[in-house]
Amino acid sequence: MKKNRRSFLSLGAAALATSTGCQPGADAAKAPPSELGAAVSEYGSRSPFEKAARLHNSPTPATASSRTPLEEIHGILTPPSLHFERHHAGVPQLDPAKHELLVHGLTDRQLIFSLADLKRLPSVSRIHFLECAGNSGSEWRGAGGDTAQRSHGLASCSEWTGVSVKTLLAECGLQKAATWVIAEGADACLMARSIPLEKMLDDALIAYGQNGEALRPEQGYPLRLLLPGWEGNTSIKWLRRLHVTSEPMRSREETSHYTDLLADGQAREFSFEMDAKSLILKPSGGQQLPGPGAFEISGIAWSGRGRIEKVEVSLDGGEKWIAAALDEPRLPKAFTRFRLPWSWKGADTILQSRATDDTGYVQPTTEQLIAARGSNSNYHHNGIKRWRIEASGKVTNV
Amino acid sequence: MKKNRRSFLSLGAAALATSTGCQPGADAAKAPPSELGAAVSEYGSRSPFEKAARLHNSPTPATASSRTPLEEIHGILTPPSLHFERHHAGVPQLDPAKHELLVHGLTDRQLIFSLADLKRLPSVSRIHFLECAGNSGSEWRGAGGDTAQRSHGLASCSEWTGVSVKTLLAECGLQKAATWVIAEGADACLMARSIPLEKMLDDALIAYGQNGEALRPEQGYPLRLLLPGWEGNTSIKWLRRLHVTSEPMRSREETSHYTDLLADGQAREFSFEMDAKSLILKPSGGQQLPGPGAFEISGIAWSGRGRIEKVEVSLDGGEKWIAAALDEPRLPKAFTRFRLPWSWKGADTILQSRATDDTGYVQPTTEQLIAARGSNSNYHHNGIKRWRIEASGKVTNV
Repeated sequence: MKKNRRSFLSLGAAALATSTGCQPGADAAKAPPSELGAAVSEYGSRSPFEKAARLHNSPTPATASSRTPLEEIHGILTPPSLHFERHHAGVPQLDPAKHELLVHGLTDRQLIFSLADLKRLPSVSRIHFLECAGNSGSEWRGAGGDTAQRSHGLASCSEWTGVSVKTLLAECGLQKAATWVIAEGADACLMARSIPLEKMLDDALIAYGQNGEALRPEQGYPLRLLLPGWEGNTSIKWLRRLHVTSEPMRSREETSHYTDLLADGQAREFSFEMDAKSLILKPSGGQQLPGPGAFEISGIAWSGRGRIEKVEVSLDGGEKWIAAALDEPRLPKAFTRFRLPWSWKGADTILQSRATDDTGYVQPTTEQLIAARGSNSNYHHNGIKRWRIEASGKVTNV
Repeated sequence: MKKNRRSFLSLGAAALATSTGCQPGADAAKAPPSELGAAVSEYGSRSPFEKAARLHNSPTPATASSRTPLEEIHGILTPPSLHFERHHAGVPQLDPAKHELLVHGLTDRQLIFSLADLKRLPSVSRIHFLECAGNSGSEWRGAGGDTAQRSHGLASCSEWTGVSVKTLLAECGLQKAATWVIAEGADACLMARSIPLEKMLDDALIAYGQNGEALRPEQGYPLRLLLPGWEGNTSIKWLRRLHVTSEPMRSREETSHYTDLLADGQAREFSFEMDAKSLILKPSGGQQLPGPGAFEISGIAWSGRGRIEKVEVSLDGGEKWIAAALDEPRLPKAFTRFRLPWSWKGADTILQSRATDDTGYVQPTTEQLIAARGSNSNYHHNGIKRWRIEASGKVTNV
């Protein structure tokens, strides 16, 4: 950091710790470049200086998850190249010209849709988060993961485009006995989940677009189910079949997995909705503050039930809670960015955030969650996340 | 298209022309895949089946533009890899650890900001379009460009994250005489534009993020000015200097270029704002309808002055205008997606759309534009775009 640099941050009492005075003029505005730069291109790439990456550490990487580096993401959108992954049989390479979606079962007509058929139907674009039911699951048993990516990186947010499932089912005609729909993917494990018909007729999408371009292969190219606000596993990727039935199939993924084992040995099943959650990202675990001074605290909040109404931040271990500013637009079942100016004096500090959604639901502490559900489960942990700022500026998960 | 496929589209009277009956069951839901797919990855790529590309055809591609394939884009966001480009001296490769922004001139303090300094300041994320002043300029002299990409592809829309210029200037302190700010880029031509201080204190950003990740190199990595709603050239890329002054510099880019030569030989200068505009993308020039039937008309509208309030579509050459549905959220100075169901009977048809923004401004016809401004200019063409559907289903620019 240059000696001849100074800032007078009006953020708070402290000046930028890294800035100390400035000389103007030609020296300061370095020698201008003189060489012609690179040409226009057909399909651009990020700068070679950028290194943000998904993290994965499984010995069987085709049946694994990879995590979004949330602490390096701006705004509310996740770059598709960094959207979290969770595959149970790897990413199939599907030819969109050959892929088809069958809708059958308790319908008046059994139909097969090509991608071209689907793209002719009325379409919908909406920004929604996706979160794995197992996100921050390690926190059930103490602070898990040293960074936001490792603890909470199984959540991402995109603009999705596709056809309402309601539109498709209207094409097929529903029989009276229809109450569930089994969605099946074209991966080698034929991943399948049972979805209540009510959700399918509400806001469910068959998505073929993501952030303006085609769905990425890891996200189900060329087609996925998208169930806004519900645990990620239900948004079946590489979707090949919707089977309309009168009961759930109780597949492996809704019995041995994706159920919540309670303290008394009973299990919650079909716990679809992701409860309201928030997370401070700047600063967050693994980061190092350069020293006391003015900072912006920034993070994301989301709820599977609707809009985020309020995010409160505590700077003192939970004594006082201060309302953070919320970026607009605050979209339902989408990330909302919150921000709060902060002047750090250099003392050991606990930072935490607490979200409230528009149903009035308030994000609980981990202690409250465990009192209600025990700590046997790996799923649906939405407890308040605490980061400790040590006097050295080191940020850790506590 | 399979013979055993049928759809009963409730969209209109016509069934999907391409669909004729369906057999359910194992045959229909093809043989399931049996091989394990690809592993998780650090940074994903699009499917190899996807070929959407920016278009450029200059003999000097470092001083050229490339165009977004708008007709292949979903929703309101443009994938950064397909965001339009316009470079006057190519794309410099800048090291973010060495790049600095100097703010000087009529300020109390002259300051230099590193990227780390800027990222510590309060940040803002907003979705905004960018449009080159020359977009659809060929339409001043008849139908220009056979596709939406060729005629209108110098417009894109992203979520931008950065620091308000207002915040930076407050750090420096403004002197009373300050009325303009000269912004200068670090490309080899030192691209520079004069910006009224009023805009800088309104909604101008120093952006370092784009759709959640770092700004792309073609978009000014690591820093660009972002002037929402204003002609793209003013949003100086690779920003290295803000010089606060009391008058504009009248650079080459605001005299011989980016002025609008009127019919009487006078020129409009500093015509910054991009007027309301809209464009039907599905169907659009170069596409081929498979035959009469039900379709969704879909397109985008935007205004440099605020929100899109209304988009009307005419299916009969301009006799009747029908209000299209507008996707939410309708954000100020951002793309808004409009949609209208349409049943095509197979007759020769002219389709067109007309946007109205929240200032009450109504997108004019090209004839009205030429009556007001002549046809000498290459800039600021926002006339109503007409596509012709021939009886064969071929779509052309007229």
